Amino acid sequence: MTEGTGRLAAFCDGVYAIAITLLVLEIRVPPPDVVASVGLWRALGARWSSYGAFALSFAVIGIMWANHHNIFRYIGRSDHIFIILNLGLLLFTAFLPFPTALVATYLPDPAARTPAVVLYGANLFMTAVFYNAVWHYAARGRRLLKPDADQRHVDFVTREYFFGPILYGAATLLAFVSVWVSLGIHALLAGLYVLPNKSRP
Amino acid sequence: MTEGTGRLAAFCDGVYAIAITLLVLEIRVPPPDVVASVGLWRALGARWSSYGAFALSFAVIGIMWANHHNIFRYIGRSDHIFIILNLGLLLFTAFLPFPTALVATYLPDPAARTPAVVLYGANLFMTAVFYNAVWHYAARGRRLLKPDADQRHVDFVTREYFFGPILYGAATLLAFVSVWVSLGIHALLAGLYVLPNKSRP
Amino acid sequence: MTEGTGRLAAFCDGVYAIAITLLVLEIRVPPPDVVASVGLWRALGARWSSYGAFALSFAVIGIMWANHHNIFRYIGRSDHIFIILNLGLLLFTAFLPFPTALVATYLPDPAARTPAVVLYGANLFMTAVFYNAVWHYAARGRRLLKPDADQRHVDFVTREYFFGPILYGAATLLAFVSVWVSLGIHALLAGLYVLPNKSRP
Amino acid sequence: MTEGTGRLAAFCDGVYAIAITLLVLEIRVPPPDVVASVGLWRALGARWSSYGAFALSFAVIGIMWANHHNIFRYIGRSDHIFIILNLGLLLFTAFLPFPTALVATYLPDPAARTPAVVLYGANLFMTAVFYNAVWHYAARGRRLLKPDADQRHVDFVTREYFFGPILYGAATLLAFVSVWVSLGIHALLAGLYVLPNKSRP
Repeated sequence: MTEGTGRLAAFCDGVYAIAITLLVLEIRVPPPDVVASVGLWRALGARWSSYGAFALSFAVIGIMWANHHNIFRYIGRSDHIFIILNLGLLLFTAFLPFPTALVATYLPDPAARTPAVVLYGANLFMTAVFYNAVWHYAARGRRLLKPDADQRHVDFVTREYFFGPILYGAATLLAFVSVWVSLGIHALLAGLYVLPNKSRP
Repeated sequence: MTEGTGRLAAFCDGVYAIAITLLVLEIRVPPPDVVASVGLWRALGARWSSYGAFALSFAVIGIMWANHHNIFRYIGRSDHIFIILNLGLLLFTAFLPFPTALVATYLPDPAARTPAVVLYGANLFMTAVFYNAVWHYAARGRRLLKPDADQRHVDFVTREYFFGPILYGAATLLAFVSVWVSLGIHALLAGLYVLPNKSRP
Repeated sequence: MTEGTGRLAAFCDGVYAIAITLLVLEIRVPPPDVVASVGLWRALGARWSSYGAFALSFAVIGIMWANHHNIFRYIGRSDHIFIILNLGLLLFTAFLPFPTALVATYLPDPAARTPAVVLYGANLFMTAVFYNAVWHYAARGRRLLKPDADQRHVDFVTREYFFGPILYGAATLLAFVSVWVSLGIHALLAGLYVLPNKSRP
Repeated sequence: MTEGTGRLAAFCDGVYAIAITLLVLEIRVPPPDVVASVGLWRALGARWSSYGAFALSFAVIGIMWANHHNIFRYIGRSDHIFIILNLGLLLFTAFLPFPTALVATYLPDPAARTPAVVLYGANLFMTAVFYNAVWHYAARGRRLLKPDADQRHVDFVTREYFFGPILYGAATLLAFVSVWVSLGIHALLAGLYVLPNKSRP
């Protein structure tokens, strides 16, 4: 049985809004003993990786939400499998604060930064995989699309999403070589999205 | 006095979305001293029970939400008692992160894992009991149902929910024998829901 | 300028849903050293005040939400002062997890339980005061009421709310005599609400 | 491609509601050893900066939400850049609990209070900058405004917002001279908003 997407979209919006707002809980106030010895400015400066991880994950979840918002404009119905696939997508969205905290904590540590950035990338890779699954399930044969969804726009989204898992997968593997290159790609991918894109419908 | 269900459904959706997203806060970043001695990969591996508890509870709350979403399609009105019963249901939903954290922390500890898994199961049992209460109150004599709710679908949901407390109750009691069997049943019940079900309306 | 209440109601619902779901974060997993010495069952039993405080505050916030939901059925418009008064109401709602945590932590401690329960009651008292302010502002001269709001229902709500600050104020002061009597009144007031009330419109 | 603002507004409301409700998590229960030596009343009194920071940030986020709510009444469409600008606004809204926690922790410490209050002000300054960006983008040439948005109201909002970054910027710089003057201005700006304003449309 198919049905409208209103309540599913609202539930997903809720999870995105909560995950993006919870990120700040991972930025810890410097403890009094550190502040007493080096001062608050320097103690705050030492937390650079927390701010960077917060900003990157905020951008990533914000873009995920905008993407979700975008594809749901074309989707008019929902069914059991579509809900399950969306829950899979939300699982990896809701999990992101954990690898974000790993990166925030262990990016300054040369011995521990590789696992942190690999897991961060793997989480984004899984998200991209589930975006494709959600979209393909809805768009294949126009299964759940609105009757008036423009097929050229649908094909554009399909092509655009196709590159997501490849790019995130490559960035994840590159973290074994250099965490900075890997994070740079993640930031670049977020930045590219922010740029206006004439061809984006 | 009866009324529409829009704001009640939105409130319940909010609690489900928050509870499911808060689960990640229970996965702790490994502390620096552990990471320094065994490395981050191994320190992360030692947290296997956190990931498992997160994934299981995410699936359980996601399914609860989907179920709630599902039965509200048949319900057209709300009243005082129906709101109270829904608050009871939400209480046990909002409580679930606590037994989840207990399982995450104490599943590796043979001396403490039984109480953790028993409480986890007891929480799910209470949720299943309240699902039945919410549904029976609404469906008895079609008290709060939409006029066009198909009685065969209503009866299907009634039958399906009937088994919930029995299965969760049995899984809870089995935890005294083996926590692995108990958790296996919980995972199986979640997995069964994920499978498409031809007979589900 | 007046306007509809849809987005205000949704924002308030969000705060209620988040506050009620955050309560569980105050229930801490017993630490491993305690569990190692007395076992998990006993360590969990020692947390009785956490479960009680959780259940009471869950009921209180749930009832607050139901009340807010109830009075907004009569209110058709919003204005600047009405929004400010609602923000005041939300402030004390969002603050409740803190005195809840105080009661959870210090109710077992005879030397510290009085301040904890007094503050808990004072928080509820302020909530009741703001409920009256919100309602009076909307209902005075039917300022923001829907044209079809039944005046007898409006007068019923006005009378019912009038007793809130008196009862919560009395319960708060009684905490100086006995915290158990004070908490008993809070539980009783919540329980009374749960009962169906024939005269409630 | 432009579209409606409903889902964007709902997402923003979610972030505001969560950020405002998370603030309470920064108010810590006094630890047992402090309570044992000075009693709970005094231990709670020593947390004055936590309550002040909570109240100020609650008022600030509440006013931000009311402002956002207010300007979205004039805005009828959304596009890619508008969504990005709103995400920028939300980033600084969602970040506010961190400088709030800094002020709560370090306002009593003469050696550390200046950085805490400077960062708090800088956060509010960035929020005011993004409010202007969001509004100017929508209102410039009536790009995204509803056809019936009264141009005098639009111009009023433009003038009112113009002063935001100046006032918050000045308050931030004044924190280097006196944190009390800086926080006083923040409280005053919040208080001014609360007052009814005859000229506000």
